[in-house]
Amino acid sequence: MNHGYDFPRQIQFANQEEKQEFSKFPTKTGRRSLSRSISQSSTDSYSSAASYTDSSDDETSPREKTQVNSKGSSDFCVKNIKQAEFGRREIEIAEQDMSALISLRKRAQGEKPLAGAKVVGCTHITAQTAVLIETLVALGAQCRWTACNIYSTQNEVAAALAESGVSVFAWKGESEDDFWWCIDRCVNVEGWQANMILDDGGDLTHWVYKKYPSVFKKVRGIVEESVTGVHRLYQLSKAGKLCVPAMNVNDSVTKQKFDNLYCCRESILDGLKRTTDVMFGGKQVVVCGYGEVGKGCCSALKALGAIVCVTEIDPICALQACMDGFKVVKLNEVVRQMDMVITCTGNKNVVTREHLDRMKNGCIVCNMGHSNTEIDVASLRTPELTWERVRSQVDHVIWPDGKRVILLAEGRLLNLSCSTVPSFVLSITATTQALALIELYNAPEGRYKQDVYLLPKKMDEYVASLHLPNFDAHLTELSDEQAKYMGLNKNGPFKPNYYRY
Amino acid sequence: MNHGYDFPRQIQFANQEEKQEFSKFPTKTGRRSLSRSISQSSTDSYSSAASYTDSSDDETSPREKTQVNSKGSSDFCVKNIKQAEFGRREIEIAEQDMSALISLRKRAQGEKPLAGAKVVGCTHITAQTAVLIETLVALGAQCRWTACNIYSTQNEVAAALAESGVSVFAWKGESEDDFWWCIDRCVNVEGWQANMILDDGGDLTHWVYKKYPSVFKKVRGIVEESVTGVHRLYQLSKAGKLCVPAMNVNDSVTKQKFDNLYCCRESILDGLKRTTDVMFGGKQVVVCGYGEVGKGCCSALKALGAIVCVTEIDPICALQACMDGFKVVKLNEVVRQMDMVITCTGNKNVVTREHLDRMKNGCIVCNMGHSNTEIDVASLRTPELTWERVRSQVDHVIWPDGKRVILLAEGRLLNLSCSTVPSFVLSITATTQALALIELYNAPEGRYKQDVYLLPKKMDEYVASLHLPNFDAHLTELSDEQAKYMGLNKNGPFKPNYYRY
Amino acid sequence: MNHGYDFPRQIQFANQEEKQEFSKFPTKTGRRSLSRSISQSSTDSYSSAASYTDSSDDETSPREKTQVNSKGSSDFCVKNIKQAEFGRREIEIAEQDMSALISLRKRAQGEKPLAGAKVVGCTHITAQTAVLIETLVALGAQCRWTACNIYSTQNEVAAALAESGVSVFAWKGESEDDFWWCIDRCVNVEGWQANMILDDGGDLTHWVYKKYPSVFKKVRGIVEESVTGVHRLYQLSKAGKLCVPAMNVNDSVTKQKFDNLYCCRESILDGLKRTTDVMFGGKQVVVCGYGEVGKGCCSALKALGAIVCVTEIDPICALQACMDGFKVVKLNEVVRQMDMVITCTGNKNVVTREHLDRMKNGCIVCNMGHSNTEIDVASLRTPELTWERVRSQVDHVIWPDGKRVILLAEGRLLNLSCSTVPSFVLSITATTQALALIELYNAPEGRYKQDVYLLPKKMDEYVASLHLPNFDAHLTELSDEQAKYMGLNKNGPFKPNYYRY
Amino acid sequence: MNHGYDFPRQIQFANQEEKQEFSKFPTKTGRRSLSRSISQSSTDSYSSAASYTDSSDDETSPREKTQVNSKGSSDFCVKNIKQAEFGRREIEIAEQDMSALISLRKRAQGEKPLAGAKVVGCTHITAQTAVLIETLVALGAQCRWTACNIYSTQNEVAAALAESGVSVFAWKGESEDDFWWCIDRCVNVEGWQANMILDDGGDLTHWVYKKYPSVFKKVRGIVEESVTGVHRLYQLSKAGKLCVPAMNVNDSVTKQKFDNLYCCRESILDGLKRTTDVMFGGKQVVVCGYGEVGKGCCSALKALGAIVCVTEIDPICALQACMDGFKVVKLNEVVRQMDMVITCTGNKNVVTREHLDRMKNGCIVCNMGHSNTEIDVASLRTPELTWERVRSQVDHVIWPDGKRVILLAEGRLLNLSCSTVPSFVLSITATTQALALIELYNAPEGRYKQDVYLLPKKMDEYVASLHLPNFDAHLTELSDEQAKYMGLNKNGPFKPNYYRY
Repeated sequence: MNHGYDFPRQIQFANQEEKQEFSKFPTKTGRRSLSRSISQSSTDSYSSAASYTDSSDDETSPREKTQVNSKGSSDFCVKNIKQAEFGRREIEIAEQDMSALISLRKRAQGEKPLAGAKVVGCTHITAQTAVLIETLVALGAQCRWTACNIYSTQNEVAAALAESGVSVFAWKGESEDDFWWCIDRCVNVEGWQANMILDDGGDLTHWVYKKYPSVFKKVRGIVEESVTGVHRLYQLSKAGKLCVPAMNVNDSVTKQKFDNLYCCRESILDGLKRTTDVMFGGKQVVVCGYGEVGKGCCSALKALGAIVCVTEIDPICALQACMDGFKVVKLNEVVRQMDMVITCTGNKNVVTREHLDRMKNGCIVCNMGHSNTEIDVASLRTPELTWERVRSQVDHVIWPDGKRVILLAEGRLLNLSCSTVPSFVLSITATTQALALIELYNAPEGRYKQDVYLLPKKMDEYVASLHLPNFDAHLTELSDEQAKYMGLNKNGPFKPNYYRY
Repeated sequence: MNHGYDFPRQIQFANQEEKQEFSKFPTKTGRRSLSRSISQSSTDSYSSAASYTDSSDDETSPREKTQVNSKGSSDFCVKNIKQAEFGRREIEIAEQDMSALISLRKRAQGEKPLAGAKVVGCTHITAQTAVLIETLVALGAQCRWTACNIYSTQNEVAAALAESGVSVFAWKGESEDDFWWCIDRCVNVEGWQANMILDDGGDLTHWVYKKYPSVFKKVRGIVEESVTGVHRLYQLSKAGKLCVPAMNVNDSVTKQKFDNLYCCRESILDGLKRTTDVMFGGKQVVVCGYGEVGKGCCSALKALGAIVCVTEIDPICALQACMDGFKVVKLNEVVRQMDMVITCTGNKNVVTREHLDRMKNGCIVCNMGHSNTEIDVASLRTPELTWERVRSQVDHVIWPDGKRVILLAEGRLLNLSCSTVPSFVLSITATTQALALIELYNAPEGRYKQDVYLLPKKMDEYVASLHLPNFDAHLTELSDEQAKYMGLNKNGPFKPNYYRY
Repeated sequence: MNHGYDFPRQIQFANQEEKQEFSKFPTKTGRRSLSRSISQSSTDSYSSAASYTDSSDDETSPREKTQVNSKGSSDFCVKNIKQAEFGRREIEIAEQDMSALISLRKRAQGEKPLAGAKVVGCTHITAQTAVLIETLVALGAQCRWTACNIYSTQNEVAAALAESGVSVFAWKGESEDDFWWCIDRCVNVEGWQANMILDDGGDLTHWVYKKYPSVFKKVRGIVEESVTGVHRLYQLSKAGKLCVPAMNVNDSVTKQKFDNLYCCRESILDGLKRTTDVMFGGKQVVVCGYGEVGKGCCSALKALGAIVCVTEIDPICALQACMDGFKVVKLNEVVRQMDMVITCTGNKNVVTREHLDRMKNGCIVCNMGHSNTEIDVASLRTPELTWERVRSQVDHVIWPDGKRVILLAEGRLLNLSCSTVPSFVLSITATTQALALIELYNAPEGRYKQDVYLLPKKMDEYVASLHLPNFDAHLTELSDEQAKYMGLNKNGPFKPNYYRY
Repeated sequence: MNHGYDFPRQIQFANQEEKQEFSKFPTKTGRRSLSRSISQSSTDSYSSAASYTDSSDDETSPREKTQVNSKGSSDFCVKNIKQAEFGRREIEIAEQDMSALISLRKRAQGEKPLAGAKVVGCTHITAQTAVLIETLVALGAQCRWTACNIYSTQNEVAAALAESGVSVFAWKGESEDDFWWCIDRCVNVEGWQANMILDDGGDLTHWVYKKYPSVFKKVRGIVEESVTGVHRLYQLSKAGKLCVPAMNVNDSVTKQKFDNLYCCRESILDGLKRTTDVMFGGKQVVVCGYGEVGKGCCSALKALGAIVCVTEIDPICALQACMDGFKVVKLNEVVRQMDMVITCTGNKNVVTREHLDRMKNGCIVCNMGHSNTEIDVASLRTPELTWERVRSQVDHVIWPDGKRVILLAEGRLLNLSCSTVPSFVLSITATTQALALIELYNAPEGRYKQDVYLLPKKMDEYVASLHLPNFDAHLTELSDEQAKYMGLNKNGPFKPNYYRY
């Protein structure tokens, strides 16, 4: 998902504060679902599928149940193992859009590059993640898994994983205590010790650091996907406390372009339609911010007949907006005329109460950028304004004179709250994670130090190449003569690191 | 909504058969909701709002209840008069996007052009229709109203209308008997006789013809919106049995362009996303038919990064497709490679079982064109194929080798079943209806004979002009000199009748 | 070429005035090249090829030379028969883009549908026309040809035609006297009498009416291409003086769409670049008029990154502009900010001196619409303004304060003066002309009366179908079942006459 | 202009070879105009303006003439000082599109940041360069200038510069000997010693290295624009022989984006139209290479209705092409069907004789990418193929069976040979050069070592900001609170160095 910068919890390692910080975790975790943009994505996006899960009529905590899968194992904890069959179908459907992983399974299955790998993972548990986990297993890994978010687990998928033999500890609607209990159950096992960590948000890594630091003696590397988690790893590294190599998969080119430009190009339309049924043709729209997210939004809205203008702080991006045919304005110059105001800046208070006061009746306001700070929603919680919830995720804020401003998702990310993420985009991330695990697990001694690494460009290119068959795209191969002329290896990498794409 | 040709019931007027035909009505009405495309639109489209209505816990038939509104009147029959307040809010929200009607109210309110008009209406009863009805009232008309579809009534809106004094007879989930009973209650009133008819589908007109032909002595005209209803009127006219002037508002330019080109440009994306969450970028799509609907679909999909090709039978439309950048192919040449197949032809069996057999795994098939005939869905109901309902409106049809074809809305219109119609588009229709009523009611003797008329171009232009303020559009006025040079009246009409727009 | 309405000379048939009008011809003809938009197109557009013709070093009038082609014939009059070989190559190049005519030759060659036809033609004489003429010959016709414009003849093409045996009378730079002499030489031949007329502008038709009215006894029909000529024919018809059937090929769908929408989409960019080298990205542009020409201009400029707004007088076109994403404004509201002002209205004085006074420094003004009336150029010829010719077709008009407005083609049609017409577009016109001749020549007695006809839609469709192979487009054929369902003949016509495309 | 990699002459510094290499210069320089892509741009692009210069009727060498400007100075050598007035007008016209430089003059004029600077420059001498030179003068510099290309000088502009007091040594059509004589006259002056060098291609720098190495004692820095010159500087640096700081302005973001993406988006259309008058609508086009140049070409052609597919060697770029809606193919799979083949790869022999043999009749082949290597033109110079020059820059290559392939610019860069570069793009480069001079001249001791530097991002942003007024773009300023939240300085830089834009 797109995002600017996520400012994570301060991680303190001074002894005194460690405990405090640690003990604060549970309460903070509540907020996390708002502030961690990537992680949240999966949570919200599977609402459609989620509607097929049982509506939690069984109120018993999974921790109190004893369940056994058909192979006799009970080394897992899920909502209801009986949902496995339904979950299997969800996984199969997801596999259709994630053929890159399936193809990776086939290509690497003979050599089992993860033979001997013991992976402990903490991610959203959805059909797409299941395809990843089962790929890791197919490549030779043993996996124990838990959820990185207390709300995002698809129970039936967890059941299917458990049924197939993965030790999964997760259900939808965990308490904070459950959350850490599940993590602990993944790490703290007799006779089994993880040698790889796959994390999304850094909580698993954090727990191991706090509780089982000796585990790191055997761990060959950490793969981290989220902005937040990556940030924490860089801080550890800066503080000299990172004791294994870590791979930052968040900043790979393919992930960035897909998560931001291409994904937002579609989700802005989807999010607006699902919430408001608005017609785009002829609408006057201002998009705040012309980074990748803004570029995606502008391109889609313009294509559907909206009249779009842009605000920017960076003159280079502003010049790009001009050349792409968008008038660059200040928000207060145009806000009165706009039918929609969309923020994509990664900044805070981009839309202020003053702007909101000047909007016309019926103006739609939403955030595609970052957390929930871009629109000053707090400023709208004053007595003279009336809030009216007209649909899920849609509030009418009503001024004393009757003017209504239509606020979506209470200013949180529209694309996470009100639209879905295509499996194809998740496939790119999952494939990158799998390759990063393979790379770290098999890297010769010394290739990676105790530092945070970007995926080598050649692997980025490999991820891309695995996804080309989805489009029936045929790559051209360099001839020897051409490769020599260009000074390139025929198999890549094809571009210098600073290439802008 | 777009549609090709709707083939209505044969209307027989030979005495013998009349009764038969009449008695067959109820059973036929059941099918109508499939075959009447326009009418159905509203039905399906407000599912979102509909979710706020009470889920019919009260099983008593409205016909058996006695309800009184706050003014003491009980000349109505709705589900629950107590929902009036909620319905009022829905109407107010709709008003925001239907400012053309509000503006018509203001412009014409002084002169009350419908003073003395007694309008009996039979349409979908939704918030948008309520804005129309209340506009007619504001212009001086008395209104009695019923629903043209047994499923499409928004109960809370009906309640709000009843509360405000309109005699409305409609609820969601009427039986066939209820349906005709409601129509009868609208027409058959002591001390009140309709002099204008506003119909959508022709059932009201039909009932009056059958039961109360004498009413036509006072009726100054019929305004009909649907393809079906218009077709029936032309048949009456051809048979010499039309006894009052009728206005065909279905074929006005603004309605056609908005219902087809502009509306489908948006609804194709919306319908596909809501049902399948598919990513458009890079998808290979074939659109069958390059009329207005096809043009709208192609334009939107191309803009979002799909690779689109087109099939056509008409060389002129094919040439347009070429010039617009779409390869013109035969379906069987490309069907194997396609990720989506979309029909927009108005024809039948455009996608055959043979085509379906050759589609690749995961191919999405849907219909934007006409009724439910374009895809030969019947051919898929064979024992070797498995149908799996994966979401509402989404079926996986599974071949013996495991191949899945994703069929949307069982081949019925995607834009009616799986996306919404913007209030703005409904506003254009409603404004056209209001103007048609005003025109027919006030036309001097002799301007209109007992025939079916298109709205005069000048009125079409007036409808357009009432909608320009929504876009803050500023029209230029001809100078006297320019008007003379062009041979035009400064107030229009500006184009000859054959102008193609 | 696009055009709004051309107001031709009044043609008077009252005896008294006839002579007067006739004698006024020569002086009027001078202006014609400005006011007749279609006709002019070919004139200007072949400047590139024209540069290959000899630069008229030979000053002898062709009328005074005796020339003989290689077959011994001297029944022609061209600049220099020795240029035939060069002209042949130009014709061959044109044939590559006019494969529809070549294909028509092949399809119809066996049956020689024009066997016995004696066609006298008056059109621009360019490589493209030569392809038409040689097609007519291949289909069995005898042809005599002259130029409809005194400047537009490509001398080398005329030579090639003469060499191949066509009696052509035309050269570049005819005097008015030459012009009528050439026409007369085509018509007034011993032992040969025309039975078909192909005209572009109506001058040939006019001459026959005046001088050789008895010719019409044998003439089976007139085919007229230009707006002007068509207008004159309708006037004749209205006056009851049209004595043979005439075919209006100007208003066929294919010609209109290609001449206006598709052709202007390309020529607006080409004309602006060739004259000013302007960068389009980020430019603020106002397009006056949103008919087909305006739609083409707006679409292209927007696609290249310009920020485009529109002026309109017609609310329906204005609403289309809104839905297509263009702000609808009045010219005086925006003129100060614009980088370019482009007229496409067909009206006069759309850009006035007042507007010009308010333009900013460097603003480009040009006309895509009609004749030379849209921009009030005359108002700029005042002493305080300085005109500076900076390139061919580019004038800087300089205000006392130094402000420069960049006026293109002195306000005449940019697309005719400063860009070219693709052979493909001319092919559509030429094919239509050929089919119209075939239809009129072979029509059974009584199918056509002494009136002006549009080409039957089926023929329009046939013209389109002949051009589809250029795009490798594959038409779909209706099955019997489908044709029946739609109520259509499998071979067309496929649409009702009023279809808007 | 876009370009891949230019492989410059080897610069040898071993004493022995120095003389040899040096003496080889003149013959090599002849080739340079082909192989140096940037430098060549200005040469070709001003053909339009160039047509206004006198057609060299005066055959006397400028070196043999004595000319004096109106102030009595004769420290210059141009074709004809009397053309100064005409040249002045050309400069004034260029100033209109280069308002960033004018604005830089105004902002910096008070402080005269180049007071004391003695700049020796070697660039194309065109109206746009004149605006740069006069800006440097306005900021306090003394300038001596010569041409970097023997053909590209606009004589009248050189005259205008000489008249205004700049010591310029340049004319169109210099001999090789003239070329070095002019450079020498710039550097080797009594009583004046350069302290700044502005170079385009590296010849001036090279000459100083060879002849006057002591000059570098006073030189504060070199500003180099071209790929070639930058490459030579990096080689010097690597060899430890660079003795002053150098600024690489070629790789600044703004220059790259404008030179490649935005400029090619327009020039591909312009170049194709001017040479072939081809209609874009419906044409099948393959673009080889989807870097910035390819992206620009694809976007423009698609927008005008062409059906575009892409070849790529890099899977990441290939994936971008897919998401942008272009089918990714191998050239040999599609070459038979294509109407146009366009190369944008920076590689060699991308289009081989084998491909050319399989193209269809009328296929257009051209190169937008790099030098003249992409199309294997040499392979077409075989006896069985006939070459026919049909227009300037357009050859028909004719196969024995009559098939014609249309080759543009003999495979050299289309955008340099057949279209123009907008002044706005040149303005960005010129402004960057001016800022680089100011930065190097004023940098405190030690900020820059003897190395090659990229312009600091903040200056890149400043260049962009100076160009925003051209678009009437209004930047938003960060509030203190926002700047703090983002961790940014309110005045930039706003992005990390690796930001991809």
